[in-house]
Amino acid sequence: MSFTVRTQVRFAQVDAAGIVFYPRFFEMLNGAVEDWFDQELGCGFSALHKVRGLGVPTVHLETDFIAACELGEWVDISLQVERLGDKSVTLSFAFSVAGERRLGGKVVLVCMQLGVKRALAWPDDLRIGMQNALANAA
Amino acid sequence: MSFTVRTQVRFAQVDAAGIVFYPRFFEMLNGAVEDWFDQELGCGFSALHKVRGLGVPTVHLETDFIAACELGEWVDISLQVERLGDKSVTLSFAFSVAGERRLGGKVVLVCMQLGVKRALAWPDDLRIGMQNALANAA
Amino acid sequence: MSFTVRTQVRFAQVDAAGIVFYPRFFEMLNGAVEDWFDQELGCGFSALHKVRGLGVPTVHLETDFIAACELGEWVDISLQVERLGDKSVTLSFAFSVAGERRLGGKVVLVCMQLGVKRALAWPDDLRIGMQNALANAA
Amino acid sequence: MSFTVRTQVRFAQVDAAGIVFYPRFFEMLNGAVEDWFDQELGCGFSALHKVRGLGVPTVHLETDFIAACELGEWVDISLQVERLGDKSVTLSFAFSVAGERRLGGKVVLVCMQLGVKRALAWPDDLRIGMQNALANAA
Repeated sequence: MSFTVRTQVRFAQVDAAGIVFYPRFFEMLNGAVEDWFDQELGCGFSALHKVRGLGVPTVHLETDFIAACELGEWVDISLQVERLGDKSVTLSFAFSVAGERRLGGKVVLVCMQLGVKRALAWPDDLRIGMQNALANAA
Repeated sequence: MSFTVRTQVRFAQVDAAGIVFYPRFFEMLNGAVEDWFDQELGCGFSALHKVRGLGVPTVHLETDFIAACELGEWVDISLQVERLGDKSVTLSFAFSVAGERRLGGKVVLVCMQLGVKRALAWPDDLRIGMQNALANAA
Repeated sequence: MSFTVRTQVRFAQVDAAGIVFYPRFFEMLNGAVEDWFDQELGCGFSALHKVRGLGVPTVHLETDFIAACELGEWVDISLQVERLGDKSVTLSFAFSVAGERRLGGKVVLVCMQLGVKRALAWPDDLRIGMQNALANAA
Repeated sequence: MSFTVRTQVRFAQVDAAGIVFYPRFFEMLNGAVEDWFDQELGCGFSALHKVRGLGVPTVHLETDFIAACELGEWVDISLQVERLGDKSVTLSFAFSVAGERRLGGKVVLVCMQLGVKRALAWPDDLRIGMQNALANAA
């Protein structure tokens, strides 16, 4: 039971070989995380940043690139809560096209108070949403 | 009667002031042009580039930025054929949020044979589709 | 007497045709404007934004793309003050490779107070620097 | 004995919090790899792709983000050959500012024939250059 969004590979994302330039995958991944916060946790990045003064910087990332993604392909990006800490969350992610896995990995996000740039515990609503996502994953 | 697509402002697109960094508007514009080719002209950029060996480089661009777009806003991008040449097309574009215009301008694209990097006349199917779009605009 | 910086076309900037994707030119242009503020006007973007609370959003842009720029090419970007207003400045720019012009245009920047997002008159030091640049252009 | 390049954090690379948006670090990393190929291995990416028909796609990436990089900071990116395979190379990388480490990790690149998208053994000149870099690292 993971969260999945679908996106199409755009001209802006491909390199001279006609395949996605790998840093663009992380822009896509960040977009999927934004959608997850908005649609599943009930707090989009705009409210998170501007109203609540919170950010979720990435502190660890690991990725295996299995096969390339080409211009025009529709990519399913799925996210799964792997581990929930007091101040962090570990998500596993997979990018696939028509069921074929193209890349996968893990990303660790931290809850940060923007002004002082200090990690802090997840607010209750986000923690509960993430706990539910973790329970659904089991 | 213009072609319109809707897109949301992403974290990857905003700058230190929390508003869209202007080069990102042109990535969005290019995405709208890709959708127009795919949905209205019947030839997506993947087929255009890889099967037909054609590209549509931008040779002229002018833009007035009227108001900023913020993180999370839903932006309607509309395209209108203004002028159709043998080897080029002029599109006017407008970005608006909830009916409020944020930027607008014109872009001129040229039909190019990718291998030799030479301008050539639009193939019949694309020319006819663009003529229809121009007629609908009148 | 214009301000010129040199930069190399990177893999991240080229498209499926192996040439610079045009929105990347405006990232390069913005970089040249950053260098101009830092090296000629004596106030880098970091100090401008974080210490002085000022931004310089783009309100108008026009560009003619004459010839493509390829991966690995060294590009000279030159800036020239064309017109200095109370709250705005018009810069002409040209990108060339080994003296051959690849693109050129004009960009209008406005002095903005970041918090309230309101245009305001250039501070004295920036205005004087821009006046000198304008005088040198004559 | 690693290869190091210095680059400045640009406005295009920072996010709403005024710090580098993490996918931009991988654009910087790719730029450092381009410089390494050009300056140490004697074959820039332009010659690699266009003359020799070779690419070096990333197949694995892992990164620990230790501290943020801010607008205007000068970042030293160092690369070190960790392991040289027949068809791949593992590089460790570190980003630091004034000697303070901001992020670090490993990236695995594969030698690929662009047309057929098949991995192949490193050509002699690249293999020898990488062996020397590996020996210097010891």
